[in-house]
Amino acid sequence: MAGVQMASVQIREAKEGDCGHILRLIRELAEYEKLSDQVKISEEALRADGFGEKPFYHCLVAELLPALGEPQGPCVVGYGLYYFIYSTWKGRNVYLEDIYVMPEYRGQGIGSQIIKKVAQVALNKGCSQFRLAVLDWNKSAMDLYKALGAQDLTETEGWHSFRFEGEVMRELAGK
Amino acid sequence: MAGVQMASVQIREAKEGDCGHILRLIRELAEYEKLSDQVKISEEALRADGFGEKPFYHCLVAELLPALGEPQGPCVVGYGLYYFIYSTWKGRNVYLEDIYVMPEYRGQGIGSQIIKKVAQVALNKGCSQFRLAVLDWNKSAMDLYKALGAQDLTETEGWHSFRFEGEVMRELAGK
Repeated sequence: MAGVQMASVQIREAKEGDCGHILRLIRELAEYEKLSDQVKISEEALRADGFGEKPFYHCLVAELLPALGEPQGPCVVGYGLYYFIYSTWKGRNVYLEDIYVMPEYRGQGIGSQIIKKVAQVALNKGCSQFRLAVLDWNKSAMDLYKALGAQDLTETEGWHSFRFEGEVMRELAGK
Repeated sequence: MAGVQMASVQIREAKEGDCGHILRLIRELAEYEKLSDQVKISEEALRADGFGEKPFYHCLVAELLPALGEPQGPCVVGYGLYYFIYSTWKGRNVYLEDIYVMPEYRGQGIGSQIIKKVAQVALNKGCSQFRLAVLDWNKSAMDLYKALGAQDLTETEGWHSFRFEGEVMRELAGK
């Protein structure tokens, strides 16, 4: 039996009030990915973009519930941020932009629970697949996704990810 | 002066009635990418998913207008299909899923016009960047995007694209 530790973690939809916690975890993840200088997002943007009438993203949080008799309130220890994308080959699709669990809460299956929930959301919305991106040196993440049955499309089909941004994009747009 | 040929192409937002043309071009693109066995989408799905209350995608089409005195009606010769995604580092983002121009209409700058319009949409919606994916053997596309100022994130940062689909996804979801 996994016992108290497993039972005390709840995966639920994020609420607007969670955005401070989500931002803290976004920063932790970017630090782990050695790209933390790229984080420009604010809590205000996360609130506006995820909880308006037409949300740009959806988010699940892993919340640690206090054990019986412990005074401490619940704490967000992980998150999975996703949105709907579209494949012109397969139709509706989910993209898992970020998934992160704080190091001290790993090894309890929280990450897998988040992935499982995303797969459920995807199926319920009529999606036939979900996608994510991983850094090539992050072997433990790559191994986990492969063990869960994911295919590395960069490896098998040769897909490369390209980005236009900032000044380049404004020039393109003629602005 | 580029003359009549340039002037007779119009880039505009797709209408529901364009879905038949878009599907024809989706199939041509997949054939070019040597992955046409993966195309499972139907015209009905394109209509429902792109033109409902909450569209899963947006689309631009390049329409060839008939020259003066020619009886033939306008014809769709290219498209760019995009949607909004979300970066937890930079916020709102546009993803250009497909861009395609029929071979006989290339070399007139139609592809660049589509990219330019996508950049304009992105800026108007408060996006700081837009992304796309390219197959590694498609050197001419890679060269074009790089010449326009895009960065190859797979090359520079090591991002790999992963996908869960079909039976694997249903198993993950416990269904």
